[in-house]
Amino acid sequence: MMMTTTASVLTATETQTTQSPTMDLWVTERFNNAGFTFKVNRVVHSSRSEFQSLDIVDTEAYGRLMLLDGCVMTTEKDEFIYHEMISHVPMFALPTPAKRVLVIGGGDGGTIREVLKHPSVEEVVLCEIDGDVIKYSQQYFPTIGCEIDNPKVTLEVRDGVAYMANLAPESFDVIMVDSTDPIGPGEGLFTQRFYTDAMNALKPEGVLVAQTESLMALPEGVKKIYGVLKDVFPYVTGYCATVPTYPGALWSWSFCTKGTGVTPFSHFDASQVEAIAGDCQYYNAGVHHAVFALPNFAKKLIQPKV
Amino acid sequence: MMMTTTASVLTATETQTTQSPTMDLWVTERFNNAGFTFKVNRVVHSSRSEFQSLDIVDTEAYGRLMLLDGCVMTTEKDEFIYHEMISHVPMFALPTPAKRVLVIGGGDGGTIREVLKHPSVEEVVLCEIDGDVIKYSQQYFPTIGCEIDNPKVTLEVRDGVAYMANLAPESFDVIMVDSTDPIGPGEGLFTQRFYTDAMNALKPEGVLVAQTESLMALPEGVKKIYGVLKDVFPYVTGYCATVPTYPGALWSWSFCTKGTGVTPFSHFDASQVEAIAGDCQYYNAGVHHAVFALPNFAKKLIQPKV
Repeated sequence: MMMTTTASVLTATETQTTQSPTMDLWVTERFNNAGFTFKVNRVVHSSRSEFQSLDIVDTEAYGRLMLLDGCVMTTEKDEFIYHEMISHVPMFALPTPAKRVLVIGGGDGGTIREVLKHPSVEEVVLCEIDGDVIKYSQQYFPTIGCEIDNPKVTLEVRDGVAYMANLAPESFDVIMVDSTDPIGPGEGLFTQRFYTDAMNALKPEGVLVAQTESLMALPEGVKKIYGVLKDVFPYVTGYCATVPTYPGALWSWSFCTKGTGVTPFSHFDASQVEAIAGDCQYYNAGVHHAVFALPNFAKKLIQPKV
Repeated sequence: MMMTTTASVLTATETQTTQSPTMDLWVTERFNNAGFTFKVNRVVHSSRSEFQSLDIVDTEAYGRLMLLDGCVMTTEKDEFIYHEMISHVPMFALPTPAKRVLVIGGGDGGTIREVLKHPSVEEVVLCEIDGDVIKYSQQYFPTIGCEIDNPKVTLEVRDGVAYMANLAPESFDVIMVDSTDPIGPGEGLFTQRFYTDAMNALKPEGVLVAQTESLMALPEGVKKIYGVLKDVFPYVTGYCATVPTYPGALWSWSFCTKGTGVTPFSHFDASQVEAIAGDCQYYNAGVHHAVFALPNFAKKLIQPKV
């Protein structure tokens, strides 16, 4: 299914003026009976794409915020944590520097921005189902969507599940599954079929990472996702970091390989980190090791297969 | 200033029945224009002590929750992270196992519960300014306040600043400053005078840890606290972990010594961890190292003096 990036199903609402400063406006994401709330200075944009509602607001505490179907996707203030974690951890784990990288989801562009810091990269494919996410990120999040037009980027605005099923074997050094939650348009990205296709598309010494949800707010979901991953991949572990604006804050990512001896540390060379990722706000060589030191309760949920 | 633990200034409200299930009741802590919100099943207790308001509610997502002056102090579901972090990190760093430990604040009892897992401990002094926190934690948080009556615990219900000023030199192996925020009753616990007295009360190879606020929600405050600590102690570093229900989630603690060669790792013996802290939900030997691997933005705020 190929889609254009231009049209929203409903007309977008553009608010050109700042809301009255006397109005105490807040936006809240509630998930499993708890939530995060932000004071809002201005509703910048609201529209509905073929797949989901998309809202952009300016918050007082976290800068500009994008919501999809009412769920926080990214904020200007803390996006660096999620995007540095999903990208640099696998990139620095490879035995040889990555040339071809695939990002599934990630239409805001933050993940590819980090990937492109690695000079070895010749092509990044960004496969995002919802062209509106790309379009409005470029328009409204200049610090996040800034590399989407980079000539090394190939845009595939289509369903990641179908895209993955049709790839030639051993196409990519790294696959990053930068999805929304298991409910909604991202649902197919949590299935055994999808991960079997992903393993097929991965080079022998490649690494697949996926965002695997909140250890605190969705523990049973985490367990289930790792069950699926361990059914498919010979080597599966997980790592975690804090994303303050995501439900439960303590977020997890999987690290999966074909079992050819590539672990998070087997080929890690700390001396390369400063030159490539020295401007990172979160990631560094110490963090690369630290994020795999799982708290006891997280170990029980992930149960690494190593 | 000595106080009794019995009387609240205002009469406590006890709600014996569960709120009507059709009422959509939420409690929200807002801090610097962002906040965390919890669905509430029942308001268990509300009172006002000499120092602060104290509310206890049953939440759907995080179990029972205590608020002081409207700020989240502890929840049944995630309290283990904060309490394991402030206690086991210094306890396992000592050259010889701790005999005498001082906890300033920490009236809920969670920190001393963890300290008392260490069999070497002969006495823990719990110096909490507000006797109501102790009283209602014992009454309403049986899994947290469970060790307050332990014969090894000495209760000092008084101001921690005055208590610290009158201690004999080299009285304690570990001092844990388990305070509220720098505004309100905890204010004096963030001053140079207090930390000078604390250093004096610390044994030569002792360790002081203090909760040092949110790296994400109060970065300038963190910087200021570490400035004060570095004015006093010859060796100051920091560590961090996620407390989902605290503002900004990514929380910090300081690790300070008298500069006698005791670092977080200098005397750490991973083989001791399982026997003493094997039932922890967060802390383990890997976590002990990992929490000191600061993200780049946290390094800039803390600027360790090592």
